[in-house]
Formats: sequence, C-alpha cells, structure tokens
Amino acid sequence: MGTTILSDLGTEIVIPICALVGIVFSLFQWYLVSQVKLSLEKPAAGDKNGFTEALIEEEEGINDHTVVQKCAEIQTAISEGATSFLFTEYQYVGIFMVIFAGLIFVFLGSVEGFSTSSQVCTYDATKMCKPALMTAVFSTVSFVLGAITSVISGFLGMKIATYANARTTLEARKGVGKAFIVAFRSGAVMGFLLAANGLLVLYITINLFKIYYGDDWEGLFESITGYGLGGSSMALFGRVGGGIYTKAADVGADLVGKVERNIPEDDPRNPAVIADNVGDNVGDIAGMGSDLFGSYAESSCAALVVASISSFGSTHDFTAMMYPLIVSSVGIIVCLITTLFATDFFEVKTVKQIEPALKNQLIISTVLMTIGIALVSWVALPSSFTIFNFGTQKVVKNWQLFLCVCVGLWAGLIIGFITEYYTSNAYSPVQDVADSCRTGAATNVIFGLALGYKSVIIPIFAIAVSIFVSFTFAAMYGVAVAALGMLSTIATGLAIDAYGPISDNAGGIAEMAGMSHRIRERTDALDAAGNTTAAIGKGFAIGSAALVSLALFGAFVSRAEITTVDVLTPKVFIGLLVGAMLPYWFSAMTMKSVGKAALKMVEEVRRQFNEIPGLMEGTAKPDYATCVKISTDASIKEMIPPGALVMLTPLIVGIFFGVETLSGVLAGSLVSGVQIAISASNTGGAWDNAKKYIEAGVSEHAKTLGPKGSDAHKAAVIGDTVGDPLKDTSGPSLNILIKLMAVESLVFAPFFAAHGGLLFKLF
Amino acid sequence: MGTTILSDLGTEIVIPICALVGIVFSLFQWYLVSQVKLSLEKPAAGDKNGFTEALIEEEEGINDHTVVQKCAEIQTAISEGATSFLFTEYQYVGIFMVIFAGLIFVFLGSVEGFSTSSQVCTYDATKMCKPALMTAVFSTVSFVLGAITSVISGFLGMKIATYANARTTLEARKGVGKAFIVAFRSGAVMGFLLAANGLLVLYITINLFKIYYGDDWEGLFESITGYGLGGSSMALFGRVGGGIYTKAADVGADLVGKVERNIPEDDPRNPAVIADNVGDNVGDIAGMGSDLFGSYAESSCAALVVASISSFGSTHDFTAMMYPLIVSSVGIIVCLITTLFATDFFEVKTVKQIEPALKNQLIISTVLMTIGIALVSWVALPSSFTIFNFGTQKVVKNWQLFLCVCVGLWAGLIIGFITEYYTSNAYSPVQDVADSCRTGAATNVIFGLALGYKSVIIPIFAIAVSIFVSFTFAAMYGVAVAALGMLSTIATGLAIDAYGPISDNAGGIAEMAGMSHRIRERTDALDAAGNTTAAIGKGFAIGSAALVSLALFGAFVSRAEITTVDVLTPKVFIGLLVGAMLPYWFSAMTMKSVGKAALKMVEEVRRQFNEIPGLMEGTAKPDYATCVKISTDASIKEMIPPGALVMLTPLIVGIFFGVETLSGVLAGSLVSGVQIAISASNTGGAWDNAKKYIEAGVSEHAKTLGPKGSDAHKAAVIGDTVGDPLKDTSGPSLNILIKLMAVESLVFAPFFAAHGGLLFKLF
Repeated sequence: MGTTILSDLGTEIVIPICALVGIVFSLFQWYLVSQVKLSLEKPAAGDKNGFTEALIEEEEGINDHTVVQKCAEIQTAISEGATSFLFTEYQYVGIFMVIFAGLIFVFLGSVEGFSTSSQVCTYDATKMCKPALMTAVFSTVSFVLGAITSVISGFLGMKIATYANARTTLEARKGVGKAFIVAFRSGAVMGFLLAANGLLVLYITINLFKIYYGDDWEGLFESITGYGLGGSSMALFGRVGGGIYTKAADVGADLVGKVERNIPEDDPRNPAVIADNVGDNVGDIAGMGSDLFGSYAESSCAALVVASISSFGSTHDFTAMMYPLIVSSVGIIVCLITTLFATDFFEVKTVKQIEPALKNQLIISTVLMTIGIALVSWVALPSSFTIFNFGTQKVVKNWQLFLCVCVGLWAGLIIGFITEYYTSNAYSPVQDVADSCRTGAATNVIFGLALGYKSVIIPIFAIAVSIFVSFTFAAMYGVAVAALGMLSTIATGLAIDAYGPISDNAGGIAEMAGMSHRIRERTDALDAAGNTTAAIGKGFAIGSAALVSLALFGAFVSRAEITTVDVLTPKVFIGLLVGAMLPYWFSAMTMKSVGKAALKMVEEVRRQFNEIPGLMEGTAKPDYATCVKISTDASIKEMIPPGALVMLTPLIVGIFFGVETLSGVLAGSLVSGVQIAISASNTGGAWDNAKKYIEAGVSEHAKTLGPKGSDAHKAAVIGDTVGDPLKDTSGPSLNILIKLMAVESLVFAPFFAAHGGLLFKLF
Repeated sequence: MGTTILSDLGTEIVIPICALVGIVFSLFQWYLVSQVKLSLEKPAAGDKNGFTEALIEEEEGINDHTVVQKCAEIQTAISEGATSFLFTEYQYVGIFMVIFAGLIFVFLGSVEGFSTSSQVCTYDATKMCKPALMTAVFSTVSFVLGAITSVISGFLGMKIATYANARTTLEARKGVGKAFIVAFRSGAVMGFLLAANGLLVLYITINLFKIYYGDDWEGLFESITGYGLGGSSMALFGRVGGGIYTKAADVGADLVGKVERNIPEDDPRNPAVIADNVGDNVGDIAGMGSDLFGSYAESSCAALVVASISSFGSTHDFTAMMYPLIVSSVGIIVCLITTLFATDFFEVKTVKQIEPALKNQLIISTVLMTIGIALVSWVALPSSFTIFNFGTQKVVKNWQLFLCVCVGLWAGLIIGFITEYYTSNAYSPVQDVADSCRTGAATNVIFGLALGYKSVIIPIFAIAVSIFVSFTFAAMYGVAVAALGMLSTIATGLAIDAYGPISDNAGGIAEMAGMSHRIRERTDALDAAGNTTAAIGKGFAIGSAALVSLALFGAFVSRAEITTVDVLTPKVFIGLLVGAMLPYWFSAMTMKSVGKAALKMVEEVRRQFNEIPGLMEGTAKPDYATCVKISTDASIKEMIPPGALVMLTPLIVGIFFGVETLSGVLAGSLVSGVQIAISASNTGGAWDNAKKYIEAGVSEHAKTLGPKGSDAHKAAVIGDTVGDPLKDTSGPSLNILIKLMAVESLVFAPFFAAHGGLLFKLF
C-alpha cells in the first residue's frame, strides 16, 4: 500500500495556506474594484491595473457628475433592499435551522437510546467507536456550522455584487473593456472568498472534531456530513426564496412596463425596478453562492465519509484522507492564475472579445487543474490503496483516482461548452429560436422548449461517462472525487457566474440613472455574455450536483447497511417512480409561486401608474418600497412549501417506508431532476439571449427581426418572461433538491436503519 | 393448486363469442350513425334510438339543404385527405416493417446459430423445447400480424371518424343532445371494433401457433410477444407521423388565420383548414387507436409470457393461462352495457350534462368491471397457483390476483378523474390558467406549465400504489394483469376518447359549411368536453403504458437471465441516467418537427392570402391541396428520426452495452417518460380548455376575460398553440416510447443474452 510523499505536517500547512492565499487574493481584487470611486474624485493616476491605459472605446459622459451621484444613490437603494431582504429571510431560516438542528440531535441520539457508552464500530467490529449520542452532538454542531458558512457566503456575495454594480456602470462610460474588468474582478472577489472560506471552515472543523474523536475516524467523518447538510439546506431556501423574489419582481416589472406601458427595461418610472435589481442580487448571487458552496461541502463530505471506512481510515493516513481538501486547495491556486489571464495577461477591447475571454477562463482553468490534480495525486496518495465498495474493499491505484478527478473536471468543461452553444446568441440554436419569433410567441415557446430538451443530451452523456469511469475505478469514492474535480475550479466558475448578474444590474443602473443608450448597449453586451455564463454556471452546478448526489446516495446506502438497490423489488421501484415525480412537484410549486407573486406585482405596478399623477411623465416618483415588500412577503411565504417538500420527503419516506424505498426515491429524483434542471436553465437562457439578439441587431438576420418593439421582439419578450422562473427559480433549485435529499438521507441513515420502515413493519 | 371452474372448452367458446358480440355491437352502432343522412332525405320516422323524440333545443337551419350538400362535400374532402395520407404513411412503415421483420428473424435465429434441432427449455431443464430458429420464424410472423392489426385498427378508426363528423354537425342543428349521441356512438364503433378485433386476432394466433408448438408453451408465448412489438411499432409511427401532421396544420392554420388575419378557426378561407381537419383524424384517431391497441396487445403478451413459465404453463392449464384474454372478453361485455347508459338509458339534454355523462361512463364501467373481474377470477383461476418471480416461484391466491387486476382498474379511474379535474374548465385549475391570461401570454404559459407539472402528482401515486400491490401479490404477472385491468374497459375508453376529435371536426365542418354561430357553439361545447376526454384517454394510455412497460421490463429481465437490476452498479446506473434522458431527446425532436413544419405551413398560408386575389373576401377558393402536401411531406420525413431513436436504442444498448445497461435504460425511460407524458398532455389540454372557457363566456368570471379577440383571449390562443405539440405529438408518443423499448428488449432478449454487451466484452 505504501505511504504518501507529502507528510501529514505538510498537509496541515498546505491547506490553510492555500485558503489564506485565496482570501488575500480576493481582498486584493476588492481593493482594485474599490478604486473606481462612487464619489466625484478621479481615480488615482499611475494605477497599473488597467485603469490608466489608453481608453478602448470613445468615452462618454464621464464628466457628468450628477450621473455619479445618481448611480451611488441607486446602488445604495439596491444594497439596502437586498440586505433588508436577506435579514428577513435569515430570521425565518434561522428558526428552521434551530428546529432542524434539534431534530438531528434527537433522531441521531435515539439510535442507541441516548446511551453515553462507547459502541462497537459499524465497519470494523474489532474496534470501539465513540457513542452515537456524541455523533448526534457533533453532527448537530457541524450542521449549524455549515448553515452559518452558507449564509455568510451568500451574504458576502450579495454585498460584493451590490458594491460592484454601480462601479461597473461608471466604468462602462469609458468603454466596454473597463466595465468588463470591474464586473469580472467583482465576480472573482466572490468566487475566491467563497471557495477559500468553505475550505478553511471545513478544515478547522475537522481538526477541532479530531481533538475529541482521536482515532475514531468513522465517527469523526460521519458527524462532518452535517456540514454538507447545513450548507445545502440554507442553499435551498436561498435559491428558492431568492428565486421567487427576483422573478416575481422581474416578471411583474416587464409585464406592465415593457408590454403595457411600452417603457424600457429598468426604467426608473417603473415602481418594480428596484425590487427587480434587488432580486438579481439575492437570487442569482446570494442563492447561487450558497448553492455552489453547498455542492462543494457535500462532495467533500461524501468523499471523506467513504474514505474514512476505507484503507485511509483504517491506517489513519491523514494526508491521503485529506486528498479531497488538497485538491480544492490546489484549485484555488489554479483559479488565481487563471483569473490573471482575464484581467492582466490579456485585455478585452471589444464586445466580441467578451465571450471568448470568459470561455478561455474555463479552458485555462481546466488545463492547469489537470496538472494540479496529477501533482496532488502523486504526492498526496499512496500508489495503491483500498476503497469501501458496498460491503467489500476495492483496490485502487493513484493514477486511477487521478483519472476519476479528471473525468469530472473535463466533463464540467464539456457541459460548459455545450451550455454555451445552446444559450449564446453567437450560435444557431438561439438564432433559430429568435427566428421563430417571426411567427409569434407560440412558435418561440415551442422552439425554446425543444432547445432546452435537446440541450440535455450531451451533458447527460458527459455525466454518464464520468460516472462510469469513476464508479468503475473507485466505486463511490471515485464518484465523489469526480464531483470534486468538477468543482475544483469553483472559484473561476463562481467568478464568471457572478459576473452575469453584476453586469445585468449595471445595465439597470445605467437606465435608471438616465445614462445614454451607448452606455446601455455596452452593459447589454456584457449582460448577454452574462446570460451565457450564468447558464454555464448552472450547468456546472447541475452536473456536479448529479455526481455529488450519487456519491452521497452511495454513502447513504453503505451507512444504511444495505448492499443492493434492486429496481426489481416493489419497494425500490415505487420509490424510483415517486422520486422521479418530485422534481415536477417542486417545479410546479415554485413556478406557480412566481406566477402568483408576479400577478400581485403587476396589480401594484398598474395601480401606481394609474393613481400616481405624473409618474409616466417622470415628474413624480414611484413607490418602490411597496413593490419590494410584495416580493419579500411572497418569497418568504412561498419558499416554505417547496422547502418542506424537499426537507420532509427523506424523513417521511425513511421513517415510514424504510431505506430501500428511500434509495429508490433518491435515484429517481436524481435521474429525473438532472434533466429538468438542465433543460429549464438552458431554455430560459436561450430565450433571454434570443431577445437580446433581436434587440442588439448586430447581424443582417437579427436586423430583419428587430428593432425593439417589433412583433418579433414582442414575441421574444414573452419567451424571455416565461423563461425567467424556469432559469432562475425552478431550474437551479432542482439541483439542490437532489443533493439535499441525498445528504439528508445520509445524515439520518443510522436512524432510518435502526427505526425506519414503520409502515412495512406494521403490515 | 386445484383446477379452474371454467373448462378449457368453455374458454375456447367464451373468448371468441365475446369478441364477436363486440364486433356485432360495433356494427349496430355504425348502422345507427348511418341513419343520419348526408343526402337530402329525412331520417326514417319511428326510429327508437333517439332520433324522433321531441327536440331538446331549438332547431336551427335544418331545412337549409345546401348546408347538407356542403357538409357532405367537406366530409369527402377530409376523408379523402386522411385516406391518402394514411396510405402514404403505410407505404413507408411497410418498408420498415419488412426490414424489421427480417432483423427479428436474423437476430433471434442466430441465438442458437440457426440450428433446427430441439433444445433444452430455458426455464425447465428437464424438458425439450422447439428450436430457437422456429421461435424466430413465429416471432416474425406474430410481429407482422401485430403490425397489420394495428394498421387496420388505426385505419378503421379514421374511416369511422370521418364518416361521423359531418353527421354530428348536421345533428347539431337539432340540438346538442342529438349531436352528442351521434359523436359518442361513432366513438363506440371504433372502441368496440378495436377491442374485439385485437382480442380475436390474438386468440386465433395463439390457437394456430399451438398447432406447431404443442406442449412447448414457453416457446409459444415467447413468440407471441412479437404481436405486441408489431402493434406498438406501428403505433409509434402512427402517433408521431399523425401527431406531426395534425399539429403542423393546426398551428400553421391558427398562426395566420386567427392571429394575423383575424378570421375564425376553421374558416373555409384558410388554406390549411382541410389539412387541419384531416390531421385530427390521422393523429388523434388513427394514431391513438393504434396506440391503445398496442398497449392492450403488449399487456396481454407480458402476462402470457410470464404465465407460461409459471404453474399455468408447467401444468398446461389452458383456462388459467387464458385469464388475461378472458378478462378482456368480459371487458367487452361490460363496456357494451356501459355504452347503453350514455345512449339509451339516459339522455343528454343540455350542455352541462355532457361532461357528467362522459364521467359516468368511466364510473359505471369501472364498477361493473370490478364485478366482472371477480367472476372471472373465481371461475378461470385455480384457488392457488405459482408465478415466476425472477428465478423463484411465488404462491398466489386467486383473490390476490383479483386485487391485482382491480387495483389497476381503479387506478385508471383515479387517473381519469384527476385528469378531468386538471383539464376541464369546470374546475379551478383551468380557470386559474384562464385568469392568468389577464396579464398576457407569458403568465398563461407559466401557469399552464405549472399546472401540468402539478397534475403528475396523484396519477404517479396511483400508479405507484398499483405497482406496489400487484408486484407484492404476484410479481411481474401481477403488474401485467394490473395493466390489463386498467385497459379492460378499453372499449369505453376509446369511445369517449374518439368522441373528442369527432366533435372537433364537427365544429370545423359547421364553420366551413357556413352554418350559424349557434351550431358552432353547440359543437364547441361538445369539443370542450372532448378535450377533457382526450386528456383522460391519454391519462389511461400513459398509466397503462407505465404498468405494461414495467411488466415487459420484468419479463425481459427474466428472459435475459439476470436476477437483479442493482442501481449501485455503474452499468445499470448510467443506463438509468441515459434512459431518463431519452424522453427529452424524443420530445425535442418531435416538438422541433412540429415547429418547423408549422413554419412552412405559415409561409404557404401567407403566400396564398397574399397571392390569391379575392381569398379574404371569400370570392376565390384557397389551394387546400398544397397545405395537405406540406403536412404529409413533413410528417413522413420527420417521423423517421424519432422513430429511429426509439427503435434503435434497445438494439444498440443491448448489443454494445449488454442487458444490465439496457435494464437501466428501460427503468430510467419509464420513470422519467411517464412524468413528461402526463404533464405534457394535461398542460396542453388545460390551455385548450382555458381558451374555450374564455370564448364560451358562460360564467361572470369568463365574461370579464372575453370575448374572442380580447387581449386575454389572444394570450389564451398562444397558450393553446404551444400546447398543441405537447398534447398531441410529443406527450402521447412518449408512452409508446417506453412501451416499445420494453417490448423490443423482450423480443430480442435471447439474442442480447447470448451475444450482447460487445463493448464490455472487448475491454
């Protein structure tokens, strides 16, 4: 079996150092962004980071000081709205967190009847492990830690985004390149802060727990899974609540503003406009930050829990055990280098360079990370080791594990490219959708739905290949590290993902501040690329969620002490069928919630236009606060039923139907949810960009469809509006659904194995 | 174990007698429909079947003889168009049939290297069975028989429907009750003819094959499975080809006619109007007839093949073996009585009575059939017997099997009711969707999609319960007879399903013949109920397809000699994931096909409006034939890729990846496809009826949304158009996808078991 090249001490140093480097880099990027002043002074001369070079495109309106003032005001309004919403949201999820923490303690504590005496280990009958009661305590603690880290991640992301959006707008006056750098840097701040923060908290938690657990790694890493559960359950509420908030405002604002009153998007006369911009930050930024943090935490936990009952755990090989965390550490360094390619090594000068610049980020990070993984696999793994495989142990070589991580990493790249192909208006699929607007909204919707369905094919094959390779080489451990591979470049992924909503907001601020159409065109170009990167980010989130869920599912099955999940038993099959239905149930809830909240918003916006004299003429101010309140109330109220569905299903199924049926439910929701999630997010992205394609009118073809206000454009707006809840509410929440049910089942597995399946026991 | 009360001779008499009774009843209904004359004579006086009673509502225009003439002309045009399309379609599928028949023979013949010597039986090593080569021959023959029966079923259905539609229009002049009876009777002609014909051909085939096979029931019923494959593969092309045809024409006609030119639906000035009406008959009628026949044939085959390797087969208990056919025979008699409740025992007098009358059909047939099943289970089954259960034998009591059939039957009723609730405009879900049209097409689409997703929940639970009960009691045999239970009232199901398109066509003819708006309102009322019954019919088709597929899947697994399908093996899991993706791929193809064909149709219709002088004024005639040709060409061309996807997937997966992966694919496509199929067909049905709700304006609420031409109505039309391909092309084709892949796998199972999995064998 052999030992690792990297010593345990080295591991203890490398991980926190990389995390700290990430945090410092993030703060440095923040400093650079802050150099764009929101007051009237000019940026410091001689700055070397792209702010003093010859201007790329004609400057416009940079001497208009009232604009700066206005931007600052709007930014403050957005930031305050977002902060106030998140605090309200956190109050509610805080209550949930306390209740659920109690539930975890009671359920897990009851497994051995709250006994405080040590017990025989589950996987090694010759050893004694810590009492189940203490695992209950530590699981509860790690759950709370995960939840808090997730909340902080989302909150910080939102703060950064609202700090950056007006600055992006102001830089857009100088040219598209300047604006791009600010938006991208701000995304990077968020990406690095989250990745590093998640890693650091997990690392510290493991080291602290180890003080109590000592040699009992089985108990140690079992209780660590609570961290993943905490992270993902907060992410669920963040995504769903934020998603409903943003889309209720967006749909409501568009339906009255663009369709009925014929005023532009983000026009300051529209009462829902502030709510719409707040929504981008609480939904797309805070929600997405929590989501990807959750995926990262879960895939680490899944890998750790499987490793702890494998040879790493039994020989107490700390470095090998920490392999997942070392991969993530190296990922931070790789992403750091990658970021420099976008901000320092090359320069975006024209609109056409934006998408390639973002695409190169994906390619560069993947190539560099491949080298990084090879290095880590060489120094941090023994040349050969055994991995737990449903009751047996499987021998794995270090190069095989290298391939497992790589296959996940490269599958992520493929998913990214395919998503780009289907959602960017540079390619034929979106152009076909735009073309179908010629015959009206109906064909637009039909073509868009078909596009989303079609876009599922290659990502599913990519995921299937990664699963097959990693599963065959290293069972569930392989799948878990493949997920980690896909997420190893999370800092870059988050950076380009957060870039989207920041650009979107920048455009909104430009419109609201009454800046010229040229500025708006520049921010629109940034935003069009942003729609694509947002879709790519969602693609990553979904792909990694599929792998993570499978790994968690495997860990659950191992922990629940069943060795096969046979489709040809009625208990499993009905689970599979009902599980495949859950994503539909969940989507129905979230879409209806958005629809209902949007209708309320429409009524309020209409009321204001009718009752406030001078609003249309721009002489009176709308009542933004009421619209913000409608979105807030709706999202808080409406996030509870879908949240309950996801959180309660594993508990109900586990308690009443037992672990076999629960296995079926997990597998069913996984294979079905992935498809809807991918198709929903790509359909939505494609519609949005089809609309932008018509609006921008850069090609001959696009010109025949436009301009704004043409029949084809109206049809495109309808598609875009339908796509809003698909791509920003139900679609991205679905990957949390599949992960969360899996990690929750894993955490509660000992309880279900001991006391579950009541209904079948009764009859 | 005991013997059955019904003797073998009794069985040999009961089945054909019931089938003949069904055929005679069907012909009698046809005779009654034919009493409505399409020439100028009046109906014979003194007729007792509802034609001479006091007229229900005020008569209108029955003395306008030119109208009769016009109706006859239009009917002829529709009938000729449909016949010509079906013949073209059959030429292409005929070629496919020959090739595929050859494939079956070669593949199955090669299992034992085309040896003509007898071999040891698969399931009973002490016996000798007929050579694999002869099973190949007989499988090929039964495949061809199934295909031909399916084609005949679809063709006859279309003939009946086109015979009935103008007659329904003419009766609508006398009142809604008269029209209802004609439409419903015509549906019954089709229902009984198909049910009886399918049963009879299967019965005769079994008896003929028995002459060769003698005691080798294993071989006999294995080769009979070809009948199901033949039936379903024709159904696939029928549904897909017909679905593309009808929706290309419908969408194309609506987009130019209703939206651009502001002329009513089915206006004779619209060049696509004949193609649209032809489409209803080739898609909704012929396609659906083939589809349900396929389900019936497959569930019978699945039950027979499992029974043949159980105690029925080993003790050669012919009556018990024929249990599935006896259940279907009794079903015909039950449906006959049920039909009389709609046509003779009660009378539909007002619009409001239409839906209850149709709903009562479901309730009455289910209640009566429960008694029928009890009777059959008592006389045609031994009190206790054993059933093959993946390598072991399971003891089953006759009352348990009774429960298995009943649970399927009643699950069908529940699915029917839920479908009605979600698609009828008498209930709040559709009214909510209609209400959302207030804020435009986007909210309409969002609400409609959410409704479809939500409508999946209860049907899935109903199917899950049926599977759990039947699987637990009698393994795969239980699931197969549960499917048969759901389909046992197929004659009634088909009758109320076919009623829909007939009413739809009747409305079209009324419009084209220039009849008054009152007549059109009556046919619209019939049609609104028809949309709901069509959705119910699709619900049955999907629910039964789920059960049938599972039974076939189980039979395939048994035949492929694997005993578990463990999700936790990479081969199976990737199959599951990719299988769950296939319905999306398939839907993407079919929806895009409809969209593309509709665009072509739009161009042609626009061209005719622009180039033919006097067309809008009604002084010139449009060129209907070109539109018919566009639909025909598009559907023939576009049905090939989705058809190939479904037919080739099992072959490719089986040959290259082997039976484990194929099992995963089957399970994945089953659990995922059911959801999309249900949601697509209910979403489409709801949109259609939301539009009708606004048009009819019967409630205060509806009046605030209407009338025709209002903004809300325009939004509703967009939803309806989007729903067209969902509910009539991709949705209903999906249940064929899941059934067909399963039955194809079953037929080829011996080949895959012997020679499959090349790729894994190589590496």
